[in-house]
Amino acid sequence: MFQTFDSAGDPSVGKPRVAKLREWLAGQGLDGFIVPRADEHQGEYVPARAARLKWLTGFSGSAGVAIVLKDRAFVFVDGRYALQVRKEVDLDVFAIESLVDNPPSSWIRENLVRGTRLGFDPWLHTLSEARALKAAADKAGAALVALDRNAVDAIWDDQPEPPLEPVEIHPIAFAGELARDKLARLAAVIGKEGATHAVLTDPSSIAWTLNIRGRDVPHTPLALGFAVLAADGNHLLFMDERKFSREVKAYLTQLTGLRAPGEFETAIADLAKAGAKIALDPVLAAEKLRMLVEENGGTVVEAADPARIPRATKNAAEIAGSRAAHRRDGAAVAKLLCWLERQKPGSLDEIAVVTKLEECRRATGEETQMPLRDVSFDTISGAGPNGAIMHYRVSRATSRTLGDGELFLLDSGAQYQDGTTDITRTVPVGRPTEEMRERFTLVLKGMIGISTLRFPAGTRGSEIDAVARMALWKHGCDFAHGTGHGVGSYLAVHEGPQRIARTGTEKLLQGMMLSNEPGYYKEGAYGIRIENLILVTPAEAIRGGDIAMHGFETLTLAPIDRRMIRPDLLTADEAQWLDAYHARVLGEIGPMLDGETLAWLEKACAPLPAAG
Amino acid sequence: MFQTFDSAGDPSVGKPRVAKLREWLAGQGLDGFIVPRADEHQGEYVPARAARLKWLTGFSGSAGVAIVLKDRAFVFVDGRYALQVRKEVDLDVFAIESLVDNPPSSWIRENLVRGTRLGFDPWLHTLSEARALKAAADKAGAALVALDRNAVDAIWDDQPEPPLEPVEIHPIAFAGELARDKLARLAAVIGKEGATHAVLTDPSSIAWTLNIRGRDVPHTPLALGFAVLAADGNHLLFMDERKFSREVKAYLTQLTGLRAPGEFETAIADLAKAGAKIALDPVLAAEKLRMLVEENGGTVVEAADPARIPRATKNAAEIAGSRAAHRRDGAAVAKLLCWLERQKPGSLDEIAVVTKLEECRRATGEETQMPLRDVSFDTISGAGPNGAIMHYRVSRATSRTLGDGELFLLDSGAQYQDGTTDITRTVPVGRPTEEMRERFTLVLKGMIGISTLRFPAGTRGSEIDAVARMALWKHGCDFAHGTGHGVGSYLAVHEGPQRIARTGTEKLLQGMMLSNEPGYYKEGAYGIRIENLILVTPAEAIRGGDIAMHGFETLTLAPIDRRMIRPDLLTADEAQWLDAYHARVLGEIGPMLDGETLAWLEKACAPLPAAG
Repeated sequence: MFQTFDSAGDPSVGKPRVAKLREWLAGQGLDGFIVPRADEHQGEYVPARAARLKWLTGFSGSAGVAIVLKDRAFVFVDGRYALQVRKEVDLDVFAIESLVDNPPSSWIRENLVRGTRLGFDPWLHTLSEARALKAAADKAGAALVALDRNAVDAIWDDQPEPPLEPVEIHPIAFAGELARDKLARLAAVIGKEGATHAVLTDPSSIAWTLNIRGRDVPHTPLALGFAVLAADGNHLLFMDERKFSREVKAYLTQLTGLRAPGEFETAIADLAKAGAKIALDPVLAAEKLRMLVEENGGTVVEAADPARIPRATKNAAEIAGSRAAHRRDGAAVAKLLCWLERQKPGSLDEIAVVTKLEECRRATGEETQMPLRDVSFDTISGAGPNGAIMHYRVSRATSRTLGDGELFLLDSGAQYQDGTTDITRTVPVGRPTEEMRERFTLVLKGMIGISTLRFPAGTRGSEIDAVARMALWKHGCDFAHGTGHGVGSYLAVHEGPQRIARTGTEKLLQGMMLSNEPGYYKEGAYGIRIENLILVTPAEAIRGGDIAMHGFETLTLAPIDRRMIRPDLLTADEAQWLDAYHARVLGEIGPMLDGETLAWLEKACAPLPAAG
Repeated sequence: MFQTFDSAGDPSVGKPRVAKLREWLAGQGLDGFIVPRADEHQGEYVPARAARLKWLTGFSGSAGVAIVLKDRAFVFVDGRYALQVRKEVDLDVFAIESLVDNPPSSWIRENLVRGTRLGFDPWLHTLSEARALKAAADKAGAALVALDRNAVDAIWDDQPEPPLEPVEIHPIAFAGELARDKLARLAAVIGKEGATHAVLTDPSSIAWTLNIRGRDVPHTPLALGFAVLAADGNHLLFMDERKFSREVKAYLTQLTGLRAPGEFETAIADLAKAGAKIALDPVLAAEKLRMLVEENGGTVVEAADPARIPRATKNAAEIAGSRAAHRRDGAAVAKLLCWLERQKPGSLDEIAVVTKLEECRRATGEETQMPLRDVSFDTISGAGPNGAIMHYRVSRATSRTLGDGELFLLDSGAQYQDGTTDITRTVPVGRPTEEMRERFTLVLKGMIGISTLRFPAGTRGSEIDAVARMALWKHGCDFAHGTGHGVGSYLAVHEGPQRIARTGTEKLLQGMMLSNEPGYYKEGAYGIRIENLILVTPAEAIRGGDIAMHGFETLTLAPIDRRMIRPDLLTADEAQWLDAYHARVLGEIGPMLDGETLAWLEKACAPLPAAG
């Protein structure tokens, strides 16, 4: 299995470790320390070595911050972890604060006592975060002190070593563009922005640029490291050579100078001393890099990671790979859904479904000679009220039986070498209520609204987010997450910068992949989400129209449960889209199935009954 | 008539005046001067005295900038004035630049010769504009020089005096809140923002706060002046006392200290010397104010004009007034539309319709004892291809006959003491083509989409703009303006900060009035726009829903031409909205009409034929 079902958090660790941390801080003349969830790469997953927040507090969520002061300590989490954090940390040691309503910078501004010396590790905070924290500390009359050594590392005796998993070359058949051509493109961009160098701190950008993949963190095929790209072509990669086979090393040597991670700081300092103008992405790069550049006489050019938009706009090979991955993944999901429909209500629990789904994906991957490399995230398998917990992670302690009359929400994804998938389907266990069917249909209307949208060049994700919500809004409902996130190409399943959300300021460009996943959540009762991945199509002329329009191609191929749909709530155009989608699903994944699964799929993909 | 049909621009003025200006600049050691359209209040209309751009160049549009250098001169205009400017200015003297693609700040950065000393009048540019111009000049190695005296004023011998039109008190029955209570509210806001004072430079804010109206500029009932509000309640109004009757003066004296406009600079300087923290709105306040505050030791607090949101969120009296104004205005528009439908194609020109419309409004205003005070802007009366010019202003030179088979677009508004209106209707002259009807119906679908939208608290105008465009987008069409602007209450018909547009970053709050006006423009052929004013309703619970939702109440009451609608393109819900709207129009304005107008209205408001 690529995922575990352990209950992650342990509230007993907090007390002794916080005591030890306070002792160390006192010895350094500090009054406190900030412990973010992030590592120096700001990714969704961190290696065991960097799981400092969990080690110190017990909290195992994927976002959060702790602030430990002399006499008080706080853990900041967002709404999705509000319940979980109270089970995982010792509430005698930590008070809980909202990461959204009162994030550390506001908290510091309002609460830090004048004269407080609050330490932070400048490797773990981005330029913009550090700027906000400093401004807040200033307002409070406190000092934010950048430490040379992370305070948690100083007291963590058995801290794991950095991961040393092997790096592999991502074949050109899937990457679609040679690394040397990508490097030349990026070097030109760096020069245009008036910089001599750009530091890539995001391992996704390094993986995309060099066409390499790794296994240093769970579920995303990344090799952790840093790269310094140079406008003049003298690039450097800082990565432990023990991760390279002889072939990989030979390959990388053609593209870039190879340096040990330990040489990174000195290299940046040396470039700065030589007068380099170094581009750093203010929302990705570590504050420490800004310090190193500026303290050594270099110039920081604040500019977006140059690989972000090229990586986000997929090329023909990546798109072809994704389509193939989605056919394979759709077949696997169809097998699971067929199997699930045949089980009696009350006979399965959430973990059994996750286990079976991974089996289906492994089997289909082997049959098609494109093995499942990993799941793209821990499967969200939520029955009844667990489905209403938006980022639910099933453990043995929480796994619930799929009971009669409940809804079951299954959000999962796969990593294949040709593409990354992410799909959510919600199915009834036994007979759904009329309310469930109405809400499901409203969610579906939103998903179809996005699927069928045409839009002119320059449209931003924030401008179309409401399209997925209008039908719910009319009924007094909404969902508390964005409509869609970017998706990588055998890379991170959550990839920036494109999004369909209130915060989606990026223009939607041809080749961008996104999720389309409106939902509805009734706390304590059930959750509904329908998610397909979509691809921004080229702007195309429309017959009789004036302006070429972009649209979305749906990549995900699996039936949407017809038992949950109220056809009378769909417009003729919406019903037509759904029937056409189902016909396409049957046509594309049917040939990969047979026997009772194929028979099931034919039924699941039948046209809707006429409304009224 | 409240509007004229003169061809405004005169290209012959440019050559001698520019020569004179250059001579004056040379005497001051300057290489150039910037002449914006704006006055020191940044409003849409300026008094004759401040029409410097028109005086110097001949260009009469409502937005633009000139830059005059020693050997070259430029006029910057946006797309809507691209044709007009070429008729109004001497192209031997001025080159034309795009205000949007290459605004003065970009132009200066790219084109100004190193060492150039470019003068500007800091009363006529906002803080943010001045900042952008300075940064651009810096990059070009040029100097932006703030002048003590406007260079155009220096050479304009017969420059008109500032207007001295009478000020009237806006009755509490229409204002709904006493000026003293508004002042107390604003004083509290100023204190909260850490300021001791706030300067109101926008006469709309002064009019709203003090419940006064004036006649200093066309079409918007403003009295030009400045106010300094104080957190401690010691407010000052800088306005020429010759505008006040004894009663008005007695009224204002209860609210604020009255000072002559000539004392304004000294007063700001004195406050600054006393250590005041003065709030200035960076997108409204004159750069000169920043200079006065900072040069005299005061502190500038950059904060939005404190009256903007209170003014934008209308109270019960303002809403009741607007509803009454819209019934009256709807009746007047119905009379016009009935009359128009009875005229033979080819028998009328655009000016005749404008004249008749003003007659209808005057007559209805007198019948209802709420006389027409002004039109709220120059009526856009566009037949055939003139309808495709988005901000067309009809003149005797351009007035076109309404020909058979053409569309006719009529966008107009009125100022009554109880409210400001703005309505667009597009009607066929003779028989419309199928394409015209299809496009009209797509525009209507967008307008209905906004009219029927429900949305949660916190939604911004930028998030719903696409709702008005989706139907057009699907057919490869769009329109090149925002969906809606804010509207004042017997104040400016274009009022910030709320908008429904890509740039609408303001949250939509209960009581805000906006226009809802999608369109479609086929250059050289026809224009379509349908515009109603709408009001943001309170968040209300929806049966069966979880969240209270805002929506829009439609204020405008006049039939939408059924001859232009293709019922087969409307959903059942859309057709139902239209029928209900027409039933409401008939119910609300029918009682104000009789005879053939009422008979016409009954027909115009009949339900749509069933589709198919």
